[in-house]
Amino acid sequence: MSKDAHLELYAFWRTASTHRVRIALNFKGLGARERFINLETGEQRTPGFLAVNPAGMIPALVDEGHPPLTQSLAILEFLEEKVPTPPLLPSDLHGRARVRSIASMLATDTNPLLTRQVKKYLTSTGGFDETAWQAWMIHWLTFNLETIEQRLATESQTGKFCHGDTPTIADIYLVSIAFIAKAVNVEIKGIPTIDRIIEQCAALDEFARAHPLLQEGAPSN
Amino acid sequence: MSKDAHLELYAFWRTASTHRVRIALNFKGLGARERFINLETGEQRTPGFLAVNPAGMIPALVDEGHPPLTQSLAILEFLEEKVPTPPLLPSDLHGRARVRSIASMLATDTNPLLTRQVKKYLTSTGGFDETAWQAWMIHWLTFNLETIEQRLATESQTGKFCHGDTPTIADIYLVSIAFIAKAVNVEIKGIPTIDRIIEQCAALDEFARAHPLLQEGAPSN
Repeated sequence: MSKDAHLELYAFWRTASTHRVRIALNFKGLGARERFINLETGEQRTPGFLAVNPAGMIPALVDEGHPPLTQSLAILEFLEEKVPTPPLLPSDLHGRARVRSIASMLATDTNPLLTRQVKKYLTSTGGFDETAWQAWMIHWLTFNLETIEQRLATESQTGKFCHGDTPTIADIYLVSIAFIAKAVNVEIKGIPTIDRIIEQCAALDEFARAHPLLQEGAPSN
Repeated sequence: MSKDAHLELYAFWRTASTHRVRIALNFKGLGARERFINLETGEQRTPGFLAVNPAGMIPALVDEGHPPLTQSLAILEFLEEKVPTPPLLPSDLHGRARVRSIASMLATDTNPLLTRQVKKYLTSTGGFDETAWQAWMIHWLTFNLETIEQRLATESQTGKFCHGDTPTIADIYLVSIAFIAKAVNVEIKGIPTIDRIIEQCAALDEFARAHPLLQEGAPSN
């Protein structure tokens, strides 16, 4: 895959998983043509998109001539292996495991509980009203971000970013989840290390250009 | 880490995430001394274990002289990088992305919705009774396993196992989730490819020895 490769990213402006892939593409210097999938109108369940991803989920990254790549975690690892520079994982095994562990605390313990699909189930079948849904989101965001704060604040490998002084996939995950928290008006106090890292990230062009509110379909206000 | 390395695995017999690490350790020929953490009595929230993993979650793998490794996905990638043979990921980039994508459909879309913590929230704060919890589990297991079945049944890379004719981390995830489904009496029909792969895995010693019911603390009946 060269920088001129024909890449297409099936995307929705707001989705955290797409947000992460956009950041990684920016770091790797890869441009991808975005194909807007309107989750508000259920476009992800149309035959056209189900042919790309039978799970009906975005993102899907199409590298011309290959089957669509799905699942943001798999896509980030793919981009890291395909375009190793600049690295988004440290070079030492234990460091890589730490970065993947922090990313995974967000990828598996946090984000899956906050999805559109889960909201749909809880508010239709599960008997949740908007207040109960908000409390659910606050619960998982708070517990997980506080736990990550505790790690970041106490582990010696933390630097300007989650791991050392250059961004890794852990920072990419953190930024994407912090955006969810902000979007749903959940403010978590007492996570100064995370707040500081988010601010460092926001100052970098690769993160800034990937901001959901700058993408096609985003509200202008 | 040699095969004689001093490894300790903080574990509970039933947990899917621990199950996965046990299988990977078996493939890599690594023995780990298990430290039983009794989730039934809340041992994961005691100061002793929180010092190992502030998230209060198992598994945690301690490789002597290094900070504890947490999050099963990160641990599996660590073991794969540390002991490359036999490989649990294919050698080609697109194949690796496919295996990670299938694993991630289970790691992020399925397993996080079925945890003890989620059950606790839904049945205490969320107003779910046992029937509602069972329906929730059936919903996510069915949707995700049917979607994976569709991929496995139609994608040309599927072989004896999820990807080709040797086991990968996708199979490890699949077996661990299939065990959850069985343990909670959720029987999903119409997933013949998955059923066949699970059977192939069960016949392998590395999977068989890792079976939750063979571990310390498991019920004998």
